[in-house]
Amino acid sequence: MKPAAWNRNRLTQKLGIEYPIIQGAFGGFASQRLTAAISNFGGLGSFGALSLAPAAIKDVIAEIRSLTSKPFAMNLWVSMEDGDARTSDEKAFNRSLAPLAAHLAELGAPRPAYKPSSPMRFEDQARVLLDAKVPAFSFIFGIPPREILEECRTKGIVTIGVATTPDEAAALQDAGVDVVAASGFEAGGHRGSFLRAAEDSLTGTFSLLPQVVDVVDVPVIAAGGIGDARGVVAALALGAEAVQMGTVFLTCEESGASRLHRETLLARKAGHTGLTKGFTGRLARAIRNRLMEELNAKGVEILPYPLQRGLVRNLSMAAEAAGRSDLVPMWAGQSANLSACTDVPAFLSSLVEEISEIAGPVMQWSANQRQKRSSSSASHRAGA
Amino acid sequence: MKPAAWNRNRLTQKLGIEYPIIQGAFGGFASQRLTAAISNFGGLGSFGALSLAPAAIKDVIAEIRSLTSKPFAMNLWVSMEDGDARTSDEKAFNRSLAPLAAHLAELGAPRPAYKPSSPMRFEDQARVLLDAKVPAFSFIFGIPPREILEECRTKGIVTIGVATTPDEAAALQDAGVDVVAASGFEAGGHRGSFLRAAEDSLTGTFSLLPQVVDVVDVPVIAAGGIGDARGVVAALALGAEAVQMGTVFLTCEESGASRLHRETLLARKAGHTGLTKGFTGRLARAIRNRLMEELNAKGVEILPYPLQRGLVRNLSMAAEAAGRSDLVPMWAGQSANLSACTDVPAFLSSLVEEISEIAGPVMQWSANQRQKRSSSSASHRAGA
Repeated sequence: MKPAAWNRNRLTQKLGIEYPIIQGAFGGFASQRLTAAISNFGGLGSFGALSLAPAAIKDVIAEIRSLTSKPFAMNLWVSMEDGDARTSDEKAFNRSLAPLAAHLAELGAPRPAYKPSSPMRFEDQARVLLDAKVPAFSFIFGIPPREILEECRTKGIVTIGVATTPDEAAALQDAGVDVVAASGFEAGGHRGSFLRAAEDSLTGTFSLLPQVVDVVDVPVIAAGGIGDARGVVAALALGAEAVQMGTVFLTCEESGASRLHRETLLARKAGHTGLTKGFTGRLARAIRNRLMEELNAKGVEILPYPLQRGLVRNLSMAAEAAGRSDLVPMWAGQSANLSACTDVPAFLSSLVEEISEIAGPVMQWSANQRQKRSSSSASHRAGA
Repeated sequence: MKPAAWNRNRLTQKLGIEYPIIQGAFGGFASQRLTAAISNFGGLGSFGALSLAPAAIKDVIAEIRSLTSKPFAMNLWVSMEDGDARTSDEKAFNRSLAPLAAHLAELGAPRPAYKPSSPMRFEDQARVLLDAKVPAFSFIFGIPPREILEECRTKGIVTIGVATTPDEAAALQDAGVDVVAASGFEAGGHRGSFLRAAEDSLTGTFSLLPQVVDVVDVPVIAAGGIGDARGVVAALALGAEAVQMGTVFLTCEESGASRLHRETLLARKAGHTGLTKGFTGRLARAIRNRLMEELNAKGVEILPYPLQRGLVRNLSMAAEAAGRSDLVPMWAGQSANLSACTDVPAFLSSLVEEISEIAGPVMQWSANQRQKRSSSSASHRAGA
C-alpha cells in the first residue's frame, strides 16, 4: 500500500496549506514580507501583532493580503498584563532601572520615565482579526473568551492555541480551540504558560509532544527545537501533524529582526541560550549575553509585564544603534545553530525535499500509534 | 533496495548487543536482576555502582555474570566530590539540617551527625571494572584519566561517556571515549555536566541530540524523555544510533526502586517533575513533592555533594518506612507518565515490535542526512 502523501493531513486540509510547516510568530519585529513569503511557499506564515494598536493591525492584514493570496495566521497575546502590573509604582520602577542606569548613561540614552501600565486590550485587537476574517488566529498566554472563539467558528477562522503542558492542551481543546501547538522548553521567545507559572511548566519537546498528542484529539503542532529536516521527521514520529519553526527564519532577507540579532545568528553564535524574565517581565528564551546575566543576577528586581519590556526598550534601542550585542535582547531557541534561512523559498524547498524522502511512512506509522493508544485507552475506560 | 535491519549498526556491533536499547544506570538502588534482564533480552543492561566500595563492586559484577552471559555496562561517577565539600564545616551542616529537622522529629528519625566528606575514589572503583574486564564501562560527571581509558581500549572494554552539551561531547570524543550519550533536559536523575555548571547546561533532547551528532563521529546514544516507541523512532530520526531509557524500568518487578517510588510511577503520578540540588547537592530531576519544594525554597542552604546526599538519606529512609511519599526523593524523567514497564521481556518485545515497523528506513534516512552534513561541512572546511 502506498502511504498517503505526508503533507496531506487534517491540519493542512483545515488550514488550506500545502505543507504542514508553520512559521512561529515574532512579536515586536514581525514582518509582513516574511509572513507572505512563507505562505506563498505553501506553509503558514504568521504575524505577531501583540504590540500593535487595532488600526495598525488592520493595515498589516491588508498589506499581507496584498502580498499573498494564501492562508496566513495573525498572532495575539490573550493576557496583555501581569496581575501585579497595576499596583507597581514609581519606587519599583526606580529599583528595576538601577541595574540598567550605567549602561544607559554610557550609551547616552535618555533615562526612561515612570509610566503606569496601560496595555492594549486583547479584545480590541482580536476584533480587527474577526472583522477582517483572517484565515487563522493563533494566540498565546491563555484562551480567548468564549464569544471570540464562537465568532471564529462562525466565520471559518481556524484557531491555534499554545500549550506548554498537557493540562493546557486539554483546556484549549475543551474550550473548542481547533489546533494545539505544543511548545517545548527548547523554543525561543516567550513561554506562553497560563495554568501554572512558566517556571513550573518547562517540559522538553521530546516529553511534551507525545503527552499532548495523548490527551487531545485535535491536531497538534510541534514547536521548540526544530531546526532542520531531522527535527521535522522526529516531530512527526512523536505524533505532531505539523511543525512550527521560528528562530530559523529570523535570518532571512525578509525578517524584521535587527541587524545585530541576524548577524549573531548567521555567525552561529547562538549556541548558548537562556531563560530570563529580565527582558520583558515574562519568562522567555534568548541568546545569553551580558544583559541577560545581569538581569538574572540574584537580588535584581524585575517589573511585571509589560512594564519591564518598556523599561528595557530604551536601552536596547540605544544598544542596537551602537552595535552593542552584549546589551540587546536577542530571542533564539536552543536549535538556533542548526540552520539559518537566508532565502525562504530555497530553504523551504530543500527542507521539503529532505522531509519527503521519509515523512510519508513516518506519519502513517505515527497515525497507527495514535489509533492504537486511543483505542487502548477507550477500552480502559469501557472496562473501568 | 531493502534497508538494513535497524538494529544492526556500529553501536550494536561494537557492544555485541541485539537491539540498540540501553538501560539508564541507577545509582543507589541499582539491581543486578534488572541489569541482567535487559541484557538477556538483547539490550544493554547497566548497573550504577557509584555508592559501592571496590569489594562490593566485584561481587556485583560476579552476580550479574551469573545471571547473564550477555554484555552489560557498569556505571561510575568520575567526580565523586564537589570542590567545596572539603571545606564545608559543621556550621554549614547545621544550617542545611535546619529545614529537615521538623520532619526528622515527626518521623522519630535520629538527628544526623556532622561528618567531614570522605568519598570513595573513582580510581579505586574503576580498577575493579578494569580487572574484571566488564563488557562496557559507562560514566558520568567527567572524563576518566587517560591511563584508565587506555587500559579500557587494550582490554576491549567499550567506554560510554555522558554529555549534556555539544562541547562535552567533543571533549569526550577527543579523549578517545568510544560512545557518547547525549543527555537532554528531560532525563531523570542527575545532570552529569562537567564543563559548565549543570544549571547552564540544560538543553532539551530535541536540540541537544542533533547538535551532538553534528560534532562527533562516534556513535551517539539519545537519553532523556524517551518513554515509548515514538520516542525511540524520533531519536533515530535525529541521528542517534541507540536510545537510553531509565525511568520506564523503575517500575518493573526486577527494579531496586523503593515501594513508594514504584507505586507513584505506576499510578502515573509523575507528570510533574522538577530539578533540584536539594536531594544530593548536585542538580537532578525527580518527582516534585513537598521535600523538593522546601529544599528549592529561597534562602535554603544546600551542602556540596556528597554531603547533602548523606544529610537527606536519614530523612528519606525514615519517610520511606512511614509511607510518606511527600518526603522521599523519587527520581523520574519528564516522560515518566508515558509508559511503565512491569515485565522486562514483555515490555521490550512490544517496544521492539513497534519500532521495527518503521525504524529501518528512518535509520537509513538519518545516516544519509549525517553523511550529507559531514561532507558539506568538510567542503566548507576545504573551501575556507
